[in-house]
Amino acid sequence: MSVTEFGLIKQYFTKPLKNTYVNHLGVGDDCALMSVPEGYELALTTDTMVEGVHFFANADPQQLGHKLLAINLSDLAAMGADPVSATLALTLPKVNEVWLAAFSQGLHELANQFSVDIIGGDTTSGSLTLTIQAMGLIPKGQALKRSTAKIDDIICVTGCLGDAGLALKIEQGYACSIPEQALQQLHQPQPKVIEGLAIRNFASACIDLSDGIASDLNHILQQSGVGACLHWNNIPRSIPLNEYIDKTGDWMLPLSAGDDYQLCFTVSPNKVDLIQIACTQIGVIEAKQGLRILRSNRISELEVKGFEHFS
Amino acid sequence: MSVTEFGLIKQYFTKPLKNTYVNHLGVGDDCALMSVPEGYELALTTDTMVEGVHFFANADPQQLGHKLLAINLSDLAAMGADPVSATLALTLPKVNEVWLAAFSQGLHELANQFSVDIIGGDTTSGSLTLTIQAMGLIPKGQALKRSTAKIDDIICVTGCLGDAGLALKIEQGYACSIPEQALQQLHQPQPKVIEGLAIRNFASACIDLSDGIASDLNHILQQSGVGACLHWNNIPRSIPLNEYIDKTGDWMLPLSAGDDYQLCFTVSPNKVDLIQIACTQIGVIEAKQGLRILRSNRISELEVKGFEHFS
Repeated sequence: MSVTEFGLIKQYFTKPLKNTYVNHLGVGDDCALMSVPEGYELALTTDTMVEGVHFFANADPQQLGHKLLAINLSDLAAMGADPVSATLALTLPKVNEVWLAAFSQGLHELANQFSVDIIGGDTTSGSLTLTIQAMGLIPKGQALKRSTAKIDDIICVTGCLGDAGLALKIEQGYACSIPEQALQQLHQPQPKVIEGLAIRNFASACIDLSDGIASDLNHILQQSGVGACLHWNNIPRSIPLNEYIDKTGDWMLPLSAGDDYQLCFTVSPNKVDLIQIACTQIGVIEAKQGLRILRSNRISELEVKGFEHFS
Repeated sequence: MSVTEFGLIKQYFTKPLKNTYVNHLGVGDDCALMSVPEGYELALTTDTMVEGVHFFANADPQQLGHKLLAINLSDLAAMGADPVSATLALTLPKVNEVWLAAFSQGLHELANQFSVDIIGGDTTSGSLTLTIQAMGLIPKGQALKRSTAKIDDIICVTGCLGDAGLALKIEQGYACSIPEQALQQLHQPQPKVIEGLAIRNFASACIDLSDGIASDLNHILQQSGVGACLHWNNIPRSIPLNEYIDKTGDWMLPLSAGDDYQLCFTVSPNKVDLIQIACTQIGVIEAKQGLRILRSNRISELEVKGFEHFS
């Protein structure tokens, strides 16, 4: 960390360390120091949010602080990791204390909820660009990977799909009868950390849904060398999303829209009874490559589309 | 990591893992996985470089890739850590394959030199903003901190001071007789990793010089609750820097200019003989608070000035 950014990071983003059994030194030196307990691995992930790409210029800074940490914790959850620390790289056009106070509040509230220490960071001037790297612990060899789904495994998802996509439609002018839940899902997603820990011992593969299930599930399929068929009737959808589909015919939305941050995991049929979390069985892993969907008694190929940054 | 950035990170930035004893899973899943050997701590640091702030729009991408990793490895060196891995968060205005190939070449050449694996990353669109988080190993309790300098300790620096500052003057039009070394220092600094490891067992405190010694050393002084006096005649200066000072009278440059990425460390007088690396003794830690300099038989207070992002 550079010396001159000290004040900002120190004032807004550092609190006394909570996880002192792993986080030995936080903000204030050239590096932070961590240890990893014997028998554990450290999971690391990094995600960036850019103004004008991931959020609008007038976005609520408290929600931004929440979401920036949430999308990183969601990656930890998808591996079954227990979050312990994070570093923060902030590029800011100027020092706006009101903005910083709200951003740090949103970030710290979620950090407190999951006992995450902010152990380091860097602050630079430039276009608003927010990066977190989050770290978590996993008992050695128990990480939930993408490459280990097996034929006949059941495909499950937590929560509902498509609500964040619906929220984007609402912000573009769609008149929704009950918009609150969808907007909450888009702007303040709850990372499924508890769920990731709860399925770690028996799920065969897992990914978090950041780009839409058609795109994200395909990564499990490709890396595991398998295919899948989803059942449209079983895709969990909120009441306002069903209303939206009835009005517009846009039934692909819950399959193609991103930003859901639910977990999609696979589990062997003989371990389905071990599932103790709220989730929905939406399909089955098959030997035949590709992703299909059964809808109105017809099976069709599901085109893989996710958000492409540079298309 | 988001799914859609896969191609870029995979194509340009991933190689087979070298440090498989600590890096268990690299790019390609929701998280990377590391372990930390028993008896070791993990040092973590993050630094960002922004176009128009840290480098010009037409900067050589190969040098940028080198420097981005170098400034992070320099922070690891300052703690006495042995680098093992890094993650990369790239925000790019567009996909320019020529630029990416050169940037990744510069990054990988330095990564190979110090056996650093790139284990994860994120790619987003936006103004050019480059962030690395680097990780390294230190035997437990042996990290070189800023807060542990003692009265009467000798203050040492590796290399020469002010050459990167001189390079900026050269780029602003100063006619230097031998510009090569200074420009190399600014654009392709060599992180003092070997030196950090070599002094870890006996140095009392250490920091890397990113903002200029007047600013950086002051962090050791404040965090250790001590003061210091430097000896101007002992400040290591290159021949072209001395020429510059003779011509301009700007003797503060080697004390106030940043981007040197040398190590400044303190060592007890009875351990000076243990030093096996090339370095220069430039002053002494004193009980009296503040930073002073002895020059032309006069001791004066040295004003602390570093690069301020938001001034």
